[in-house]
Amino acid sequence: MTLSAEPHALTLEAFHTAVRGEALEPLWLQPDGAMTAEPVTPFCPYRWRWRAVRERMLQAGALLPVGKEGAARRVLIFRNPGAPRGAPTTPPLGAAIQLVLPGEQAPSHRHSPAAIRFIIEGRDACTIVDGEPCTMTPGDLILTPSWAWHGHVNAGAGPIFWLDVLDVPLVASLYQFFYEEHPDGLEAPRRAPDASLARYGAGILLPQDVLPAHGDSPLLRYPWAVAEARLRALADTPGDPFDSVLLTYTHPYTGGPVMPTMTCRIQLLRPGERTRAHRHTASVVYHVVRGRGTTIVDGTALDWEAGDVLALPGWVWHEHVNAAPDAEAILFSVSDEPVLRALGLYREESRADTRGA
Amino acid sequence: MTLSAEPHALTLEAFHTAVRGEALEPLWLQPDGAMTAEPVTPFCPYRWRWRAVRERMLQAGALLPVGKEGAARRVLIFRNPGAPRGAPTTPPLGAAIQLVLPGEQAPSHRHSPAAIRFIIEGRDACTIVDGEPCTMTPGDLILTPSWAWHGHVNAGAGPIFWLDVLDVPLVASLYQFFYEEHPDGLEAPRRAPDASLARYGAGILLPQDVLPAHGDSPLLRYPWAVAEARLRALADTPGDPFDSVLLTYTHPYTGGPVMPTMTCRIQLLRPGERTRAHRHTASVVYHVVRGRGTTIVDGTALDWEAGDVLALPGWVWHEHVNAAPDAEAILFSVSDEPVLRALGLYREESRADTRGA
Amino acid sequence: MTLSAEPHALTLEAFHTAVRGEALEPLWLQPDGAMTAEPVTPFCPYRWRWRAVRERMLQAGALLPVGKEGAARRVLIFRNPGAPRGAPTTPPLGAAIQLVLPGEQAPSHRHSPAAIRFIIEGRDACTIVDGEPCTMTPGDLILTPSWAWHGHVNAGAGPIFWLDVLDVPLVASLYQFFYEEHPDGLEAPRRAPDASLARYGAGILLPQDVLPAHGDSPLLRYPWAVAEARLRALADTPGDPFDSVLLTYTHPYTGGPVMPTMTCRIQLLRPGERTRAHRHTASVVYHVVRGRGTTIVDGTALDWEAGDVLALPGWVWHEHVNAAPDAEAILFSVSDEPVLRALGLYREESRADTRGA
Amino acid sequence: MTLSAEPHALTLEAFHTAVRGEALEPLWLQPDGAMTAEPVTPFCPYRWRWRAVRERMLQAGALLPVGKEGAARRVLIFRNPGAPRGAPTTPPLGAAIQLVLPGEQAPSHRHSPAAIRFIIEGRDACTIVDGEPCTMTPGDLILTPSWAWHGHVNAGAGPIFWLDVLDVPLVASLYQFFYEEHPDGLEAPRRAPDASLARYGAGILLPQDVLPAHGDSPLLRYPWAVAEARLRALADTPGDPFDSVLLTYTHPYTGGPVMPTMTCRIQLLRPGERTRAHRHTASVVYHVVRGRGTTIVDGTALDWEAGDVLALPGWVWHEHVNAAPDAEAILFSVSDEPVLRALGLYREESRADTRGA
Repeated sequence: MTLSAEPHALTLEAFHTAVRGEALEPLWLQPDGAMTAEPVTPFCPYRWRWRAVRERMLQAGALLPVGKEGAARRVLIFRNPGAPRGAPTTPPLGAAIQLVLPGEQAPSHRHSPAAIRFIIEGRDACTIVDGEPCTMTPGDLILTPSWAWHGHVNAGAGPIFWLDVLDVPLVASLYQFFYEEHPDGLEAPRRAPDASLARYGAGILLPQDVLPAHGDSPLLRYPWAVAEARLRALADTPGDPFDSVLLTYTHPYTGGPVMPTMTCRIQLLRPGERTRAHRHTASVVYHVVRGRGTTIVDGTALDWEAGDVLALPGWVWHEHVNAAPDAEAILFSVSDEPVLRALGLYREESRADTRGA
Repeated sequence: MTLSAEPHALTLEAFHTAVRGEALEPLWLQPDGAMTAEPVTPFCPYRWRWRAVRERMLQAGALLPVGKEGAARRVLIFRNPGAPRGAPTTPPLGAAIQLVLPGEQAPSHRHSPAAIRFIIEGRDACTIVDGEPCTMTPGDLILTPSWAWHGHVNAGAGPIFWLDVLDVPLVASLYQFFYEEHPDGLEAPRRAPDASLARYGAGILLPQDVLPAHGDSPLLRYPWAVAEARLRALADTPGDPFDSVLLTYTHPYTGGPVMPTMTCRIQLLRPGERTRAHRHTASVVYHVVRGRGTTIVDGTALDWEAGDVLALPGWVWHEHVNAAPDAEAILFSVSDEPVLRALGLYREESRADTRGA
Repeated sequence: MTLSAEPHALTLEAFHTAVRGEALEPLWLQPDGAMTAEPVTPFCPYRWRWRAVRERMLQAGALLPVGKEGAARRVLIFRNPGAPRGAPTTPPLGAAIQLVLPGEQAPSHRHSPAAIRFIIEGRDACTIVDGEPCTMTPGDLILTPSWAWHGHVNAGAGPIFWLDVLDVPLVASLYQFFYEEHPDGLEAPRRAPDASLARYGAGILLPQDVLPAHGDSPLLRYPWAVAEARLRALADTPGDPFDSVLLTYTHPYTGGPVMPTMTCRIQLLRPGERTRAHRHTASVVYHVVRGRGTTIVDGTALDWEAGDVLALPGWVWHEHVNAAPDAEAILFSVSDEPVLRALGLYREESRADTRGA
Repeated sequence: MTLSAEPHALTLEAFHTAVRGEALEPLWLQPDGAMTAEPVTPFCPYRWRWRAVRERMLQAGALLPVGKEGAARRVLIFRNPGAPRGAPTTPPLGAAIQLVLPGEQAPSHRHSPAAIRFIIEGRDACTIVDGEPCTMTPGDLILTPSWAWHGHVNAGAGPIFWLDVLDVPLVASLYQFFYEEHPDGLEAPRRAPDASLARYGAGILLPQDVLPAHGDSPLLRYPWAVAEARLRALADTPGDPFDSVLLTYTHPYTGGPVMPTMTCRIQLLRPGERTRAHRHTASVVYHVVRGRGTTIVDGTALDWEAGDVLALPGWVWHEHVNAAPDAEAILFSVSDEPVLRALGLYREESRADTRGA
């Protein structure tokens, strides 16, 4: 082997131009500061007010029909205001509010992104997931795992609102978007309503079934009554230093997250409670189920009340405060923690003290 | 609950403007065709010629010093020509060639992205990984897992070239970039050369060690001699229908991939062999170790010879042909398959026949 | 190496005598038939009548005090009548009935064998397991894992009877018996009553706790109400061909058995139902919770009614019949299946037809 | 519920007699001392001299033919002299020496107990395991997993001796003995010699095969050359405090033991080295591959030299001494540790000092 290169009069600048024409990019031309000590992100912490969003959803309800003649879904996405146009709520997660009016049907489709739904308001609606009608009542968590058929039906007298959280941004960044519309429009029920709840819902007494692939929970509906009773049962225990009484919705056969890309949690902040600050690389979308309080994010207070949605990008210090002297607060949250753990990218740090606003 | 929304004269267009000002984005305004049946990607299959790239690297060697006075790394990134400016090789992977000239030292740093290196040409160089000098000879695979210190030293008389593959695009898309420069410039050796090879290299006789976190292999160097001997030992066995004699570099304690984000493989195509076509959602970077042949990608032939690099985005049909009547071909490859499996997004399809060019 | 042996006039018989004196045993002297095609065991299928056993327990209650002045435990072991004196119920499992009279306390101890208890009759008693008072009501399953402290207290007005199943024979055959008496006699409560039920009992919403070692479930009490409701919820589903509606008590974090050595199940046989026959290498102890019926074991009918206990050694064909036209039957069972699975010794076979009595 | 028992004049003694006639055994009649603080076992530590055993094996060779006209196997079992007649080497393990003379064939059979073989002396013999001829040279470890066909052939000019270790006692105590003789006498080879070594032997580069069930290693032969080279490579590293340079033979895909019931290890004691004492509940059979030394067991010295076999029951304190100033010692060992770990019964304790003889 000999060094055959003879650059003659080739300048570095000419070299750069030449190689860029050959589908090669010099690493040394990356902008200064690309190699940051810690993650730098345009995504910012943000809070959306439920009262305002609800009003907008009702306007959308009046303006835009859903179903065959209208949109497939009536959804407003929480767009992170710090990030460029088109950005979702946190880097890998897109949160949104969906509204289905009485009598409407959102036709069935399936896609490689997974979704969770947390019911905010309304009754007598259901999501049909792979043929199973899943009842939707406030506080319920409904899963529509990757590639599961799902359509929505509101058979009640009032509107139904829910929080959607999907991993669309993650799936899109990996160019893994598969999509299919159901040939029948709305998929007909093939199983008893809440069949998976009957089968797997005890968590501690289970059939020996062959489980769905991909690590998705076979349980499609986690009822609010169970969540609330659990929080109540543990309300007097010490709790987590950063999140107080904290429960993770779990895959009944593994104790792991309900999906490979998102984990769902519910937490109770007792009257007057203030948690310690920590930060982790996972990003989180919170929804306030009950109460009012404040989350202090990197020193800035974001106050919240029932129905509000908060987005926290990864690696921000945060602590929760329930200043109310006699009312508890309950937060539901969705995090991309399973993604970061699976990829070896999860980190967390904590502080012994609270940081203050 | 009553429907309080009274849109009055609010038009849909005015509504869109209003909600966009409130960090909300209507889902129904997503461009038609965003929900594609199968992934649509600007990333294209591509092949880079080693002869041309090597020449460019030598020019870079002459133009750009490495080390304290120059660049931290002399690296040309394989930029996917189908994707927008700034794009890497495949959506989550960035491949590149690195050159270290005799006497040069590339200072130690560490970052959350993980890297693998596959040595193409040169001797008497080493990468110091967390204090362990890893010998670099042609065909060796060297790991620098996430957050492991690594610096390069060329103590030989000739240049050393290697293929780098990193998960930088994936880590960046998740805003998880952590970076640190070693306080000493080049990290001093703290362990015997190739200590991890001595300790874990047998694979079938192992100490009962506490393993590194994050699923990374504790073995840092996979020598070419082992890989070549393995291919040779299995050269007369039936092999895989799509990849012929195919071996995966494995974590000695789990049989899994060497890192949570990338898996490395080596495969041998026998003289005259043509594999069957398949496709999978994983993207792959190939490097031709030996021989010449053709990979037919979605019906288009990409021919290759020793040293060439190929990038295949996910979900393209591909089959390999070694048309040489008496010479074998060997391909090294790196894939993001572990990412897709962990996230429940891995799919593959095969055909009984070959598809032809 | 040369063949130095010169047996001269040594006869085979003299050789046998000589080597037996040197702690060596010729394999070829093993009795003919030691190498059986299938397991041969003196353990037989057997059924104990609850009415008779209950009467005997009450007699024992009158004759033998429990506590400081009497026996540590008032227990009658189900001794397999086919096996030699001293043998337990099935090869690795010992089942028994325990009675605690009003006002009695069975002092706390711990041992390496694990135990499960299934309450048959009585109220207002508890077992204190590692400081947690576990309420005992009929149909509850209480765990006392290996090396967990446990003592019993009957604070009620009537006697309490329960089924004990332990892995004592297995632990003894491995010479792994560790035992310790609690220094305080009865261990004082250190946690709230049924604290683990509050913490882990939902199964589908769990705290992120550090779990106990050894694979034991952290949940100590599985209430009857949960079991019964689950059976009821699945009573109209197809069920298992050999066991009808069958549920396994599971470790809430793994979906696996509640202990590494024993798995507990509950099953419902619908009116008029007859299952198909199968056999497996696991041995099983059944307790009839409700109803009456017949289990046909290798062609012999064992009929049973509420409270009865059945022992089935491994590898016997068995099928269940609930001949009642309008009453369901419920069977609780404990099996050593996890032992056999862990050791690679689990096998099962089934038949398409029922075998008949 | 009323207390219906009226024992009248029933004495406790009469009660005992009565219930024993009803297949019930009072727990309180268990002999005092059955509940021991720590395991009490008749199995004792013992050492068999290779010179003596070898001589006996040769005598057996002269007295007893192997094959169709003679015994199926020429094997002398190491019978623990502390345990009752018929007892094996340690509670769950039976060790033995097997001899096959030139020209002999031991016909193929299979059984549910698993076996390992460690070659002591001889060449040009092989064991055919499920159709794969496994070469037997001194120091090789050959596996015959549960239910794998295996027959032995000595095609060489000299005798071949090896150490057998089986889990027969464990399998027998669970009444799980299945056995079958091969219809062809000696099974004909169906795969290339040492095919599994070619396929899985690198340990760090593996095909993506469907693995055998039951947790058995798919690799059937672990060559001595690999073991010796590994020990040599680590001879200057600190090593384990209780076992010096210690390596475990591992399942190439899991890093776990080679079989679910037995783990095999090789260790090197450097000249003049003395390890620290520890004890664990696992029992161990050692075979001295090279050197001479002493193992101090509960304060008693057992000295050993090449070829000797030692049996250590569980829970005995032990430490190893290689008093030779300039010769290393190498010990091969087989332990039931995987059984105890799987069942939650593994414990160990260590001391900071050595205990002395």
